[in-house]
Amino acid sequence: MSDVLNNDRVWIGFDLGGTKMNAMLFDSAFEVRGRRRKKSRGSEGVDAGVERIILGIQKLLEESEVSPDRLGGIGIGCPGPLNLEEGVILELPNLGWKNVPLKRLLEKEFGCPAFVCNDVDSGMYGEFQFGAAQGARTAIGLFPGTGIGGAMIFEGKIFRGKTGSCLEIGHIPVMADGPFCGCGQRGCLETVASRLAMSAEIAKAAYRGQAPYILRVAGTDLANIRSGTIKEAIDAGDKIVEAIIRDGARQLGVVLAGTVNLLAPDVIVLGGGLVEALPKLFLEEVGKSIAARIMPSYLKTYELRVASLGDDSGAMGAAAWARHCVEN
Amino acid sequence: MSDVLNNDRVWIGFDLGGTKMNAMLFDSAFEVRGRRRKKSRGSEGVDAGVERIILGIQKLLEESEVSPDRLGGIGIGCPGPLNLEEGVILELPNLGWKNVPLKRLLEKEFGCPAFVCNDVDSGMYGEFQFGAAQGARTAIGLFPGTGIGGAMIFEGKIFRGKTGSCLEIGHIPVMADGPFCGCGQRGCLETVASRLAMSAEIAKAAYRGQAPYILRVAGTDLANIRSGTIKEAIDAGDKIVEAIIRDGARQLGVVLAGTVNLLAPDVIVLGGGLVEALPKLFLEEVGKSIAARIMPSYLKTYELRVASLGDDSGAMGAAAWARHCVEN
Repeated sequence: MSDVLNNDRVWIGFDLGGTKMNAMLFDSAFEVRGRRRKKSRGSEGVDAGVERIILGIQKLLEESEVSPDRLGGIGIGCPGPLNLEEGVILELPNLGWKNVPLKRLLEKEFGCPAFVCNDVDSGMYGEFQFGAAQGARTAIGLFPGTGIGGAMIFEGKIFRGKTGSCLEIGHIPVMADGPFCGCGQRGCLETVASRLAMSAEIAKAAYRGQAPYILRVAGTDLANIRSGTIKEAIDAGDKIVEAIIRDGARQLGVVLAGTVNLLAPDVIVLGGGLVEALPKLFLEEVGKSIAARIMPSYLKTYELRVASLGDDSGAMGAAAWARHCVEN
Repeated sequence: MSDVLNNDRVWIGFDLGGTKMNAMLFDSAFEVRGRRRKKSRGSEGVDAGVERIILGIQKLLEESEVSPDRLGGIGIGCPGPLNLEEGVILELPNLGWKNVPLKRLLEKEFGCPAFVCNDVDSGMYGEFQFGAAQGARTAIGLFPGTGIGGAMIFEGKIFRGKTGSCLEIGHIPVMADGPFCGCGQRGCLETVASRLAMSAEIAKAAYRGQAPYILRVAGTDLANIRSGTIKEAIDAGDKIVEAIIRDGARQLGVVLAGTVNLLAPDVIVLGGGLVEALPKLFLEEVGKSIAARIMPSYLKTYELRVASLGDDSGAMGAAAWARHCVEN
């Protein structure tokens, strides 16, 4: 394809979260030319939801004063499970969606290639292209939130396994007869080290009266114990809160140690709201835990970093992945 | 390069073990044209050892009536640690070698490209090209022996990390405060599920009088409790021996479950003398253990197989890898 055509192209990245949508438009130099953020509304059903995505992209193009025929491609990061080849969302429980052929619908509407990818993968690809994992040959990402997302970029591409997305670091078993997990197993890493799991421990401590700041500000409802609240509680001197978070970070490091022994990455990126609220604590505790457990010959072969793109990583990565897929 | 030249080429694969050397010569269709097996002799030092490798290859060419100028390349699989790019054996404790520039020495002697690779990698690449992992997109190999070797072939290539070889499945931590490991850590998988670890448990059982067949045939010296002896003891009704092996297999499955969650392989290959002596037991117990622990959506996405090339996998894989490196 000609350089002229290439230079004129724009790319859209869309991050379809269970609660938020983030759409961004990039020019051919990958400078941000426009953006829109909206809440995802599960209650309105599939048709209205898809309509909202399409309208969002149309408005983004209008606001950025870009004609749709300049679209090089659209990348859209979605929570799984997905059929990546067909670009179908198989299930999106938070929105109540099933079997939505998003790739086909977007391609029909906009007349350009569209690519559906796993949201953790697109976020990590964003960090690889523009953020904390730039320049890595093998980059592992770990994002503790409601669950724990994992992803790997290997030699410039999203690493995928037999079932499409993989790197399910959150479902590595860490505790025999441990807590029940959303995946149907028990004792997975995310049952003890996700933000949700740690919030539940913090809520218990608050209920027992050991976390006075939390009890005062958030009560014992773990839905109120969010990343910012946790950081404030630690700053305010709730010792048990810090101990719980440090122990969760230690557990992340146990599993990352095994991951280093397996995959010998050069970069490990920690991300998500809680990590980004407490970057120093996580770097310190996870780093110590990995170093104490890996094969000694792997010491100093990797760098542990905190994600740097925040909520934009998904949309940025999805757009960049669309470009990668079109151009390769 | 022309087809004529290609068709005339031969390839040598060399498996340099701590106790045995296996050299094989292949024609351009990768049919075996010759082979030599010898003991490795540590006592004789580096120079004599390298001389034995070179002499072995020369004799193999002579016996096969192949002129050295037809050599397309030599691949040599070695125990680590290695510098893969320079083709240097950094250390080979069993033979007392240090910093041996094997690639350079072989290339100088034979005037063809030579490639040093990790012995587990070459064995697994052999299984991928000619054995149990044929056709796989992502194939994981696990070989419990004195230690536990691991390897991955991904999209036709040996998967390597920052430090060269990786897939150190044997050094995934499985037991807090577990037994000391040769790597300097403790509680690694290989401290509980290698053939050596299981042999030590069997020796203890024999000492306690619980394994009468073992006590009679091998005594309590774990160096005598080898794969064949273990199989015989199980056949002879030493119940505790079977229980120990099944428990080791279960532990292999625990770590493989995490590996499936991470890498979503389509094929997992189990190999090594003990597995090959008891293939049914290992397939059953490891299979059950993985299936009980992986994310339910990963069930039936992979096949568990037993290695099919035996001791030849390393030499076959090393030769095929040399060809891959020359032709790609």
